[in-house]
Amino acid sequence: MDLIRESGVSLRGKLAAGEITAEALVQAYLARIDEVDGEIGAWAHLDPDHALAQARTLDQLRGRGLPLGPLHGLPVAVKDIVDTADLPTENGSALLRGRRPETDATLVSLLRQAGAVVLGKSVTTEFAMYAPGKTANPHHLKHTPGGSSSGSAAAVAAGMAPLAIASQTNGSVIRPASFCGVVGFKPSHGRISRHGVLTLSRPLDTMGVMATTVEDAALLAEVLMAYDSSDRDMRPLPAPGLLDVAREAPPLPPRFAFVKTPVWEQAEDDMTAALSELADHLGADCERVDLPALYDRALPSHRSIMCADLAKNLQPYYERGREGISPQLAALIEEGRSVTAIDYNRALEWREVLYDGLAEIFENFDAILTAPAPGEAPSGLEATGNPAFCTMWTFLGTPAVSLPVFTGSSGLPMGVQLVGPRSEDARLLRSASALLALLRDGGTA
Amino acid sequence: MDLIRESGVSLRGKLAAGEITAEALVQAYLARIDEVDGEIGAWAHLDPDHALAQARTLDQLRGRGLPLGPLHGLPVAVKDIVDTADLPTENGSALLRGRRPETDATLVSLLRQAGAVVLGKSVTTEFAMYAPGKTANPHHLKHTPGGSSSGSAAAVAAGMAPLAIASQTNGSVIRPASFCGVVGFKPSHGRISRHGVLTLSRPLDTMGVMATTVEDAALLAEVLMAYDSSDRDMRPLPAPGLLDVAREAPPLPPRFAFVKTPVWEQAEDDMTAALSELADHLGADCERVDLPALYDRALPSHRSIMCADLAKNLQPYYERGREGISPQLAALIEEGRSVTAIDYNRALEWREVLYDGLAEIFENFDAILTAPAPGEAPSGLEATGNPAFCTMWTFLGTPAVSLPVFTGSSGLPMGVQLVGPRSEDARLLRSASALLALLRDGGTA
Repeated sequence: MDLIRESGVSLRGKLAAGEITAEALVQAYLARIDEVDGEIGAWAHLDPDHALAQARTLDQLRGRGLPLGPLHGLPVAVKDIVDTADLPTENGSALLRGRRPETDATLVSLLRQAGAVVLGKSVTTEFAMYAPGKTANPHHLKHTPGGSSSGSAAAVAAGMAPLAIASQTNGSVIRPASFCGVVGFKPSHGRISRHGVLTLSRPLDTMGVMATTVEDAALLAEVLMAYDSSDRDMRPLPAPGLLDVAREAPPLPPRFAFVKTPVWEQAEDDMTAALSELADHLGADCERVDLPALYDRALPSHRSIMCADLAKNLQPYYERGREGISPQLAALIEEGRSVTAIDYNRALEWREVLYDGLAEIFENFDAILTAPAPGEAPSGLEATGNPAFCTMWTFLGTPAVSLPVFTGSSGLPMGVQLVGPRSEDARLLRSASALLALLRDGGTA
Repeated sequence: MDLIRESGVSLRGKLAAGEITAEALVQAYLARIDEVDGEIGAWAHLDPDHALAQARTLDQLRGRGLPLGPLHGLPVAVKDIVDTADLPTENGSALLRGRRPETDATLVSLLRQAGAVVLGKSVTTEFAMYAPGKTANPHHLKHTPGGSSSGSAAAVAAGMAPLAIASQTNGSVIRPASFCGVVGFKPSHGRISRHGVLTLSRPLDTMGVMATTVEDAALLAEVLMAYDSSDRDMRPLPAPGLLDVAREAPPLPPRFAFVKTPVWEQAEDDMTAALSELADHLGADCERVDLPALYDRALPSHRSIMCADLAKNLQPYYERGREGISPQLAALIEEGRSVTAIDYNRALEWREVLYDGLAEIFENFDAILTAPAPGEAPSGLEATGNPAFCTMWTFLGTPAVSLPVFTGSSGLPMGVQLVGPRSEDARLLRSASALLALLRDGGTA
């Protein structure tokens, strides 16, 4: 029984039925980590004994007949910008070496309450921006895994964890998921608490998840989508029912709008060819839709907000002297220092105008279908690739998912990105499942 | 029967009972306007026939036995920055002479639904900032009525309307209420919709009301405090029950924290003497509380936000050439153009830090008691007086009320300002009623 290749939903059934113990499962993942992580470097902090102790406690709870949480016994990799009271949290920065938060982030509390095992902390780029960590792409060690959620993507791709926590301020969930060939899901902005997580930019920072299946992503995200008034951008909303809806057959075959965003000229041939082929394959259920020129404003608006907020929120590190931060980050901070309040607030207004402008698309289509990245993971570990294909959707706060469906010209995985309207996270995952089923069956809708 | 000196609550009873008609009431107010407004200049737009037509319609509805709204037949003055489909809305700007909105602001719809008569549009300063309109103080025509809600304060003070709509971005409800000797109530930020109202600054703009009694202010504000998703700073909250609570006797005598804000050295002798005497009179139910030096940040933070937002939101008028706007406004816009996004967003963060710092006061006291203005209305109509005593409370989004209880050294009215915690609008008005009752009875708590 190769536990480490089973889905979280399947493992959850076996754990609940007592067919396997949480301890045995964690041991299997630790063995896999021992075997492959030397080359991949997905983990920032691991404490095998502590992970096993969590698992044994969960096994005892089950043994006593107590009710089991929805993630009972499932190991989760947590991006190292998320505070954990039992493991260091260094935000990928040399300036925070050895930092140990006193309390868990809200989302970590939710994981523990759901019975998950916090397996370890996964590598992030420096402050979840562009300077890479130590992680390599499991599909080719000389290629980047993407960033900033590099370790989470690589850990799931290499079978070192079934589930992982990621985050996106520009392209940090969807891009590494595409590069590593896993499912990456960035819910609507404001649906997963960021309390206890590194703050880069309140209007942009979005927590997300990675897994090997859409169902697993739904299972994990559903646990995390709980209202937390400590995150001022959340609103109390009913539980999204992600897993149930993601498993449903849609009432009608989903319809996709194939949208080439303003950065399309940056796409590589294998990506554009794969998407065109997919669009053709979907036939009448996929139509090409062009965005008006107004949408050229999305990327510069995103950049104004991101840089100005970086400059504010990372100011203490910047002031400690530049030797502690990368030149890439220093440049972004310097750019942000000169953004005016007018430009910042105009950018926030554009966000709403441009989002409202998508209404017609979302009335006629279930989801936008587009590229998650220019193409395969680029070679080299000195950069994490181009986030531009994710930027618009982070800016607009729409839910997005990357599905591992293509193989590029070098044999590396490539994803397809689906984007839905805000708050329609469950329906987006249902459309994603339907698309995968369709491709599996080889038929058209 | 001198209708124009009766409270709105009293008139409402007579209108409901059929003792007077809405038409007769409107006629009484129109006669009063005819008599005194030539000197005072409280109105920007009046259409007597239309006001009478509204009243006759309401009388007919009553005649048919239809249910009556909570403001049935009561005339209301509406500040001329609030869109009305049946009267011009010029925002006090020469650039908008003759502007007629197509639709009512949400709050105007709420007034109409409640059975109010929109009596006319009251004078605002230019774009609700500092350049005065034509209005004089009814208590002394050579003194300013205050601003920016100049016409609303003067209309209520002179018996030209029992109720009025006002707004505050700095000191525009509380200051003119104090200068004109009326009750001014600025609810918590985000409780009255600003959809269809001139936008100066989303984090600061707050709609308010003016009346001659606390009960009347409660009656009017309660109608307006309805959730409107078009105003993105509102949250759905239960109806506040202002009138009922404002009429209740408090379970215990209210306790007041006499707070001298960082601008106290700008207060005049008659104001500080009156407040000290009031504090002494309240005895053990009023304690002097000093704010930490940190609160010096409130006014510059407010200024950064206000100027940057003015610069953004009034940019089209600024660009049309400076002959159309006052030098005061142009200077504020120019100041706002250079505010950085970092400073703006830090100011927003300070707002929360400083508000949280008031928790201890609000745990121990029902309300803060402080000055609404430096003193009496200054002489001269070329400026509207100093808003600094209101700035902190606008910035922090707390509810505030000015009560006409003092007379200054020149015989002009002066108010006392009470401030409560956010969302505790009803309790603040109850404390205000209790304070007035105490002063009326001459006793201490």
